[in-house]
Amino acid sequence: MGTRAVPDGSTRAAVLRAHEEPLTLEEIGLPERCEPGAVLVRIGCATLCATDVHLWRGAMSFPGMLPMVLGHEMTGTVEAVGVGATDALGRVLRVGDRIGWSESTCGTCYACTVLRRPVGCVDRGYGFRQRADQWPYATAGLAEFAYVGPRAEKVVIPDDVPDTWAACAGCAVKTVLHAFDRAGGVRPGASVVVQGAGALGIVAGAMARASGARTVITIGAPDARLDLAREFGADLTLGLALDPAERREAVQEATRGRGADLVLDLAGAPGVGAEAVDLAAFGGTFVIVGSTGPTPERLPLGTVMGKELTVVGSLNGDVGDYHRAVEFLRDFRDRFAWDRLFAAPVGLSGATDALTAMHRQEQVKAVVHPWLP
Amino acid sequence: MGTRAVPDGSTRAAVLRAHEEPLTLEEIGLPERCEPGAVLVRIGCATLCATDVHLWRGAMSFPGMLPMVLGHEMTGTVEAVGVGATDALGRVLRVGDRIGWSESTCGTCYACTVLRRPVGCVDRGYGFRQRADQWPYATAGLAEFAYVGPRAEKVVIPDDVPDTWAACAGCAVKTVLHAFDRAGGVRPGASVVVQGAGALGIVAGAMARASGARTVITIGAPDARLDLAREFGADLTLGLALDPAERREAVQEATRGRGADLVLDLAGAPGVGAEAVDLAAFGGTFVIVGSTGPTPERLPLGTVMGKELTVVGSLNGDVGDYHRAVEFLRDFRDRFAWDRLFAAPVGLSGATDALTAMHRQEQVKAVVHPWLP
Amino acid sequence: MGTRAVPDGSTRAAVLRAHEEPLTLEEIGLPERCEPGAVLVRIGCATLCATDVHLWRGAMSFPGMLPMVLGHEMTGTVEAVGVGATDALGRVLRVGDRIGWSESTCGTCYACTVLRRPVGCVDRGYGFRQRADQWPYATAGLAEFAYVGPRAEKVVIPDDVPDTWAACAGCAVKTVLHAFDRAGGVRPGASVVVQGAGALGIVAGAMARASGARTVITIGAPDARLDLAREFGADLTLGLALDPAERREAVQEATRGRGADLVLDLAGAPGVGAEAVDLAAFGGTFVIVGSTGPTPERLPLGTVMGKELTVVGSLNGDVGDYHRAVEFLRDFRDRFAWDRLFAAPVGLSGATDALTAMHRQEQVKAVVHPWLP
Amino acid sequence: MGTRAVPDGSTRAAVLRAHEEPLTLEEIGLPERCEPGAVLVRIGCATLCATDVHLWRGAMSFPGMLPMVLGHEMTGTVEAVGVGATDALGRVLRVGDRIGWSESTCGTCYACTVLRRPVGCVDRGYGFRQRADQWPYATAGLAEFAYVGPRAEKVVIPDDVPDTWAACAGCAVKTVLHAFDRAGGVRPGASVVVQGAGALGIVAGAMARASGARTVITIGAPDARLDLAREFGADLTLGLALDPAERREAVQEATRGRGADLVLDLAGAPGVGAEAVDLAAFGGTFVIVGSTGPTPERLPLGTVMGKELTVVGSLNGDVGDYHRAVEFLRDFRDRFAWDRLFAAPVGLSGATDALTAMHRQEQVKAVVHPWLP
Ligand SMILES: [Zn+2]
Ligand SMILES: [Zn+2]
Ligand SMILES: [Zn+2]
Ligand SMILES: [Zn+2]
Ligand SMILES: [Zn+2]
Ligand SMILES: [Zn+2]
Ligand SMILES: [Zn+2]
Ligand SMILES: [Zn+2]
Repeated sequence: MGTRAVPDGSTRAAVLRAHEEPLTLEEIGLPERCEPGAVLVRIGCATLCATDVHLWRGAMSFPGMLPMVLGHEMTGTVEAVGVGATDALGRVLRVGDRIGWSESTCGTCYACTVLRRPVGCVDRGYGFRQRADQWPYATAGLAEFAYVGPRAEKVVIPDDVPDTWAACAGCAVKTVLHAFDRAGGVRPGASVVVQGAGALGIVAGAMARASGARTVITIGAPDARLDLAREFGADLTLGLALDPAERREAVQEATRGRGADLVLDLAGAPGVGAEAVDLAAFGGTFVIVGSTGPTPERLPLGTVMGKELTVVGSLNGDVGDYHRAVEFLRDFRDRFAWDRLFAAPVGLSGATDALTAMHRQEQVKAVVHPWLP
Repeated sequence: MGTRAVPDGSTRAAVLRAHEEPLTLEEIGLPERCEPGAVLVRIGCATLCATDVHLWRGAMSFPGMLPMVLGHEMTGTVEAVGVGATDALGRVLRVGDRIGWSESTCGTCYACTVLRRPVGCVDRGYGFRQRADQWPYATAGLAEFAYVGPRAEKVVIPDDVPDTWAACAGCAVKTVLHAFDRAGGVRPGASVVVQGAGALGIVAGAMARASGARTVITIGAPDARLDLAREFGADLTLGLALDPAERREAVQEATRGRGADLVLDLAGAPGVGAEAVDLAAFGGTFVIVGSTGPTPERLPLGTVMGKELTVVGSLNGDVGDYHRAVEFLRDFRDRFAWDRLFAAPVGLSGATDALTAMHRQEQVKAVVHPWLP
Repeated sequence: MGTRAVPDGSTRAAVLRAHEEPLTLEEIGLPERCEPGAVLVRIGCATLCATDVHLWRGAMSFPGMLPMVLGHEMTGTVEAVGVGATDALGRVLRVGDRIGWSESTCGTCYACTVLRRPVGCVDRGYGFRQRADQWPYATAGLAEFAYVGPRAEKVVIPDDVPDTWAACAGCAVKTVLHAFDRAGGVRPGASVVVQGAGALGIVAGAMARASGARTVITIGAPDARLDLAREFGADLTLGLALDPAERREAVQEATRGRGADLVLDLAGAPGVGAEAVDLAAFGGTFVIVGSTGPTPERLPLGTVMGKELTVVGSLNGDVGDYHRAVEFLRDFRDRFAWDRLFAAPVGLSGATDALTAMHRQEQVKAVVHPWLP
Repeated sequence: MGTRAVPDGSTRAAVLRAHEEPLTLEEIGLPERCEPGAVLVRIGCATLCATDVHLWRGAMSFPGMLPMVLGHEMTGTVEAVGVGATDALGRVLRVGDRIGWSESTCGTCYACTVLRRPVGCVDRGYGFRQRADQWPYATAGLAEFAYVGPRAEKVVIPDDVPDTWAACAGCAVKTVLHAFDRAGGVRPGASVVVQGAGALGIVAGAMARASGARTVITIGAPDARLDLAREFGADLTLGLALDPAERREAVQEATRGRGADLVLDLAGAPGVGAEAVDLAAFGGTFVIVGSTGPTPERLPLGTVMGKELTVVGSLNGDVGDYHRAVEFLRDFRDRFAWDRLFAAPVGLSGATDALTAMHRQEQVKAVVHPWLP
């Protein structure tokens, strides 16, 4: 536990001041009172995500973003409450409630109102848009306290859900659920190929298994992650040392020569798209989640046509997906040992090492507990 | 009318013996009797399709294909009937019936039986697999008579549907209907971009209009075809002399800044895929019909993801689509002047010129009437 | 025009004090200032809906509802604006803007947040829940001015859309659009039966026609409405004097013996469900919009099973449907003479007669212009 | 084992000559040679289905149906083969192959060809249309040998699938798979209510569980079947001694007050429809499989509308479903103890007792092994 429980206008945080440099432990600002709809929380834990690593390393960056606090998968216990603050399901928030939170949406753009698809909101508020030296300063996970603004989507966490699970439901798990929704679900008996063996890929394998897939095949690296993927339901794993033709042969064999009914790109590496199209069965579906960059990939459109594939893009999910992600982890707690996904927790001073370990693929989900020494 | 009405083991045909060379008018074999389920027809007319042009020029070719007879959009009047011959809807065929026909399917592969998607049949029989010097010789449209085998999908043509309409329903129009089905239809008020101003593109524009689209935009060339596209329902046409950024601006303006809800690739030219993704609205759909080659295209997967697009491949449709294509032409005969699609008919001796005119984009649908002199 | 343009804490309204009695013209309260997000409007017009008639007659009632002001399809011009007031699409509202508005939703219930289907909101705010003697008094259409609260869903009306169209888009037309969405749209070439020849039924016939239906058949009464239905796209109308077997025969004939691909209940009368199931084709869809009462209907479930029908319930639509309803009327203004739906406008003193005319089916859409004498 | 292995123009069979009377063991005709596409099989086993019981008792009957042989879920080993006989997936049939078979379809009606939904075939051939005294006499399961005609849909059974499983895949299990398809699948985390605790209901519970349902609730009787339902994945079972209000309360509690996302009628008893509508959540789906009679049920259409339910009818599935049903049993053999569904096998002389036991709900699936003494 830390040495101070009540914030007084500032909070300790691990601040990103320069890409690829160690985070610095500093006191940064913290609003002293809550606007209507906002709450102030004491962070329970933060789990790190590949986006945090990209932001740290500068692989993902934009002008004027620093200094900032990383961490967009986290939970906190409410310390102070603004007027009328509720969670996304209308539950009135009170001091002591444990919540998670995620991107805000505007509620009044075409995507929000007419399409009813808030993931397409034109004014979606992400944690990484918040500078640490501008009000309200501390809104992210690598800090002792955080301010959760009126429009941030908040979700009360059920008592039986650990902090780590709830934290990663807020980005990784909801992204996977949203992807399966976009895919139209898994038909029982389907064969599923998951590209990527990080947290998203492993959870996707579990989700496919839980949905009645006959065959779940995970492609990725390193071996330790593939082992974990098998613990979480993959029947077969294929490493990156194999060449695409070898992987294709293995997938054909495992699918009785038909190819995969569903392929999910949760990796985003070059070549992933073309391999997905190659591995898919006639009439199959390919969901693009991981391929985020602006660079075009070479994709054989003639094969998309000839196999009558359905290729769908999928963003990271909305607060409804967040809610369902928490429920999914609860529902299948007896089936999958979710705790196996998480590294041993470290304090704020260990956050840089945690990012490094994530980058080296030594950990699937690093956990930062800001009150550890 | 021709000089001979009854076949006697041979038929006059325009035969493709060498790519890019004139077709030669020859007598080729014709079965003297019909197997069970087969019929022998006197050709009414054939309409030419881009595939015919590709086959003629050798842009599409395969070993040992020549000599062959072109023409896979056609109608014929039944001259002789095999035991138990019916059309695809079970109507018993009799001498004098007018029919169209298209690809056969095996009925017993995974796509036919389990997926119920016969366009994915592993043993689909196309006219261009038939050599003119091997039994049953004459199965294609550029001949006076043709043998229509037991498994070819036959459709009785209603009396009020002209030969030309029925012929092109068998490939071009059914392909368009199938593409709209794959797209999930057009939501009334949607904006639709059609890439391509050939027969497929023009019919697709009409189909979008007939389905309640607010805005139909056709991209293509030459100008005469764009003019025709406007006659068939396009609100706006954009030529290939514009650069993609100019076309994008025009589409944004015509769609109130949102982009197109539906984009259909009926062109297949390089760059079509990337432009489609660029023109699509958030949540939009892109149907790939025209991009048939094995060469990968550069496609911005990150945009497919970021806009949550749905990209679907679409083949040329099955006999159910054929049936519906004939009905579509009938249903909207008062709304669209279908006859405007067709060039003046020529005899078999004019077929090479017709292919040339198609290749030069001087005609949208060339018509060959084998009994014209 | 009326004699007073600026409200001063009250407004003239036609008040329902006792069911089946004439509305009384009274001054009722009007908030003098707008809460944040609210606006005060001068009513442009109100169009009456069957629900208004039911409420007036007491066919639909609930304890303590009176006195109330009827009218939930209306437009108004903004006279005063609360802080931060925008329409549902985020357009900042200013004095002089013309708007329509409809039911509010809570934004935080399971239907709003997780299902993203706000029509299922557990706390949907309807105009008829507002008593005329309780703050904020005047929120409905049969008044000179109205207060439009922060949560009411507002829509700015484009200049080229008349008041009458915009008003009825807020209930009747959006309900029809929502119903077609629930039906999964109309496949071009489909046959559609519309049960009911009121405003909903007539607009549904137009919508089916605009969506590419081959055959549109409207069942209803009286004859004048059936005539109007034909003006709005119905190919065939069937009166209630025919017995169900006669109507069935007519539908079978008009659909080539297959029955209707889509049947929409926009009538709600007893027997409508069983007839819909009877008229539907194998694999057809039946949308229930009009059958609102708690009394069970006799429905042949064995036929629903045997024909593999899809029966879907459909509520009145959300603000996205409202937006699209306005667009639909604009998009098809050259095709359908929408003004033919509306009776000659009357002032508030004519409202009771207008309700009576609606009840007697003498008018399809009564129009009340509160500033007429 | 029986005393005779090779048929010679007749076969022993248990013949239904009068409803509710014991079946009589007789020699009936058997074709001595196979038409093209047909095969002759030695029956492996037959499993009985509720339809067999209905036919036996006369609860389901039609003029001139007797004498007939019951049994439409069965397997057989090929003894003789007609020219060109294959199974539905094109596998050439040879003496010694083990197959199952089910309803034939015409392949040329509107449902078969245009809708691609052969369950709606206008000329579907069912076993119970075959009289035992008319050629080809023996096509059903309660006999030592059977003739399987050219158009009957045949499926080769994999070696690792026991006869009992393969037999009941041909009706019960495929019906359940088809119903889930019609429902659009199960969204992981969904709550599912199964009405009926017979073979269909128990398999449906397993299917829901296998598809990722959070909560599976089975309603039915007697207690022994509800116990079995729990073994096959139901979390909660509700007996018929409870009144509907009590069941409703239990379902509400088990679904966090929201009701069931999916309700499947696999019972068909009076009142089932109204209870399903009552138990469903807003936006839920209700699949009608069991309600087969012509008598209308009272159904609250206003609730279907108010909850925006989707009610779908579902027939018994096609041969693609049959194929998938066999695969489903294989795929989940480690998860569900399928053998627990089957009673101890009896010979043909025990068939009447088996029907009685089924009727008394003492057995879920009776098994007749015709070669047992
Ligand atoms: Zn937004
Ligand atoms: Zn993340
Ligand atoms: Zn096939
Ligand atoms: Zn073609
Ligand atoms: Zn709500
Ligand atoms: Zn209304
Ligand atoms: Zn059929
Ligand atoms: Zn059965």
